[in-house]
Amino acid sequence: MTLAPQRPAVVLVSGGLDSTTVLAVARDLGFRCYALSFDYGQRHRFELEAARKVAAAHQVARHIIVPLDLRAFGGSALTDEIDVPKDRDESQMAASIPITYVPARNTIFLSVALGWAEVLGASDLFIGVNAVDYSGYPDCRPEFVAAFEQLANLATKSGVEHTARWRVHTPLIALTKSEIIQLGRRHGVDYSLTHSCYDPAPDGRSCGHCDSCRLRLKGFADAGLSDPVPYLPSA
Amino acid sequence: MTLAPQRPAVVLVSGGLDSTTVLAVARDLGFRCYALSFDYGQRHRFELEAARKVAAAHQVARHIIVPLDLRAFGGSALTDEIDVPKDRDESQMAASIPITYVPARNTIFLSVALGWAEVLGASDLFIGVNAVDYSGYPDCRPEFVAAFEQLANLATKSGVEHTARWRVHTPLIALTKSEIIQLGRRHGVDYSLTHSCYDPAPDGRSCGHCDSCRLRLKGFADAGLSDPVPYLPSA
Repeated sequence: MTLAPQRPAVVLVSGGLDSTTVLAVARDLGFRCYALSFDYGQRHRFELEAARKVAAAHQVARHIIVPLDLRAFGGSALTDEIDVPKDRDESQMAASIPITYVPARNTIFLSVALGWAEVLGASDLFIGVNAVDYSGYPDCRPEFVAAFEQLANLATKSGVEHTARWRVHTPLIALTKSEIIQLGRRHGVDYSLTHSCYDPAPDGRSCGHCDSCRLRLKGFADAGLSDPVPYLPSA
Repeated sequence: MTLAPQRPAVVLVSGGLDSTTVLAVARDLGFRCYALSFDYGQRHRFELEAARKVAAAHQVARHIIVPLDLRAFGGSALTDEIDVPKDRDESQMAASIPITYVPARNTIFLSVALGWAEVLGASDLFIGVNAVDYSGYPDCRPEFVAAFEQLANLATKSGVEHTARWRVHTPLIALTKSEIIQLGRRHGVDYSLTHSCYDPAPDGRSCGHCDSCRLRLKGFADAGLSDPVPYLPSA
């Protein structure tokens, strides 16, 4: 599918593997992409640095980083001082909602994307949610995405005035990590720009042991590729 | 209705007349109230100052102010440098979505409230939306509120695990401004603590001419009361 050129879309870009793949897909569909990132009190800055590099590499129309400090209410290892779990296998990851879950994160991020999109006259949002490899997050499921589209049609001027039908695009929702990487490669993604590790070394190298590193490494291995980001020797 | 004591709820508190009334109602229903305000780049600080006073006066369990700078995407007189409209009558206000509309504001605010509530183990949110006196905002209507409840049940751990049914309480949704003031008075609200003006003087006095002042003044007049906040002499 190719759209009329320059139709605007807001793309949530974290700097990770998934959202980078989504950005490349959105661009290649012909959207003029507006990249949205959040500074939500991540424990490390490498993620936002990666988001900046990724946005620049895909020549987005604009990239904004919205400060939104969720540490005020805590509840997650990514913003709190809880230890990141290490060396869990996929069944352990799948058995529970991970402690790295940030409460209502995708709802919050999509809501801000909705506000920016309304200002831009856009009615397309892109998000890298995935219901296969990381099914523990409630806000990564198709039912959630459909409910958000419904909400958007009721929450906005354009929805109420019927000048737009909101669409939340989730091109990765049914793909495994290895399929995501293969999709990204077809769209020319340079994965060396991305960052996935929940617990990187001070120099930015990935730990290789947190859930995010393990899923990423397995994805590259399953795709018959090697991951271009640097890992600690113990990884 | 009186609930078992100490059931927690997150209450959106702007420091205005409506949200202050909602806070008093929630407290008197027996909820342990957690007040949530946003520093979203309002052009004046009186609103947040009022929110602090109101939260303290109602002895909330905790009050947090989340920095969330929506000026990054603009689109509203409340955060941009567009002039606030003055001396409009109600038909003019009702005829269009006001330029003071902040895109997707209630969606964003409720989403953050949802995240905090999930951390607190709460499943009740309170918001002072009103579909009568200010019907221009799409995200003040019952359909919007119902869609948000639906989303919350799909977006959260507690919703997915069926340990909670989310409820967004909107005790003001069908009331006129004068009925809201009368309700608040029955719950002991001190309206001198609140702030409504979109365009206050540097000393905090209200202009008396913006849409918000006009609705507020008419509400007090219709209730046969006088507004305790100070206005500029030209008001």
